Amino acid sequence: MTRELTTGSRQEILHTAARPFREQGYDATSMNDISAALKLSKGGLYHHFRSKDEILFHIMNHAMDITEEKVQVPIREIADPEERLRALIRLHIQLVLRARDREITVILHENHPLPPGLRKRVNARKKEYIHFVEQQIAEVQRVRKSKSVTHRAAAFALLGMINWIYQWYRSDGALQEEELIQQYTEIFFAGAFQ
Amino acid sequence: MTRELTTGSRQEILHTAARPFREQGYDATSMNDISAALKLSKGGLYHHFRSKDEILFHIMNHAMDITEEKVQVPIREIADPEERLRALIRLHIQLVLRARDREITVILHENHPLPPGLRKRVNARKKEYIHFVEQQIAEVQRVRKSKSVTHRAAAFALLGMINWIYQWYRSDGALQEEELIQQYTEIFFAGAFQ
Repeated sequence: MTRELTTGSRQEILHTAARPFREQGYDATSMNDISAALKLSKGGLYHHFRSKDEILFHIMNHAMDITEEKVQVPIREIADPEERLRALIRLHIQLVLRARDREITVILHENHPLPPGLRKRVNARKKEYIHFVEQQIAEVQRVRKSKSVTHRAAAFALLGMINWIYQWYRSDGALQEEELIQQYTEIFFAGAFQ
Repeated sequence: MTRELTTGSRQEILHTAARPFREQGYDATSMNDISAALKLSKGGLYHHFRSKDEILFHIMNHAMDITEEKVQVPIREIADPEERLRALIRLHIQLVLRARDREITVILHENHPLPPGLRKRVNARKKEYIHFVEQQIAEVQRVRKSKSVTHRAAAFALLGMINWIYQWYRSDGALQEEELIQQYTEIFFAGAFQ
């Protein structure tokens, strides 16, 4: 992506480009569909992205930027490990529930084949987040002197609980944001810190 | 699918048809690709399935058959609610880890657009399984007189933990089957039945 784009327009482009991917699927979406969605000429689109893979990579990378900005950065301010982990659970659930962010973040979970170099970069960012979550769990375990489960298994359990929400959540369903945060926090804390 | 197919060959056909979907993505796979994978003429393929949507539906339906056969049916024999739920967790995790079943079951989680009638039938089976899991959890809560979390939230938490495994599990990774079953069972029981 060229540098002359401002951060704001860059985000708009990625949001708009994500739409045909979600609606038609990655494979069925052509560069023509994306340039139409962006109201750009095909030449204009190729000026920003060399390929469809590159667009997908930038959307996934943006999803990780959003996660960093909306979950990792805010909780770093919190000194108490338990409060920090509770805030992580709340902010990550809210990220999954917020429709505008979900348009982008859900694309992280699709199994689109990216070229190895780009896939490696996305996977490195996903791993970095997993390690961050593990670290928060490990710190609470230290404080609570709780060791019955490994922080690796606990981190995958928590990420599964939260990342799976998009598969079942309905904005008109019985289980809504505040209750979901409260119940998931309770289940996870009792489960991981016995 | 026509009735002259035996159950065995029907399953083989669905397994083989699932391969190009997984490897190339649903949209990029043509009926030609599927007939080539099945070593059938295009006419022969259309004799069994009227459309690609119908193939996808049958694969998803087969995934739910496998879940019923390998998780629901065996645990119905177990009288004790706690033992029954422990067996559900074990058998569902094993289903997710077994490569041959995963080829089929992973397709359930992809967000392919099915025509409304077929989508409704798949969703009804998914819901039936969610209710089954909720019911197992509710029975353990009754026995343990534990009520701090709802069985709805607990069921989604458990299904998230287990269904998410395919996103991170590696057969050469640090967390392997027995340890994973033991840790997830421990986290879930302590979390849901306080």
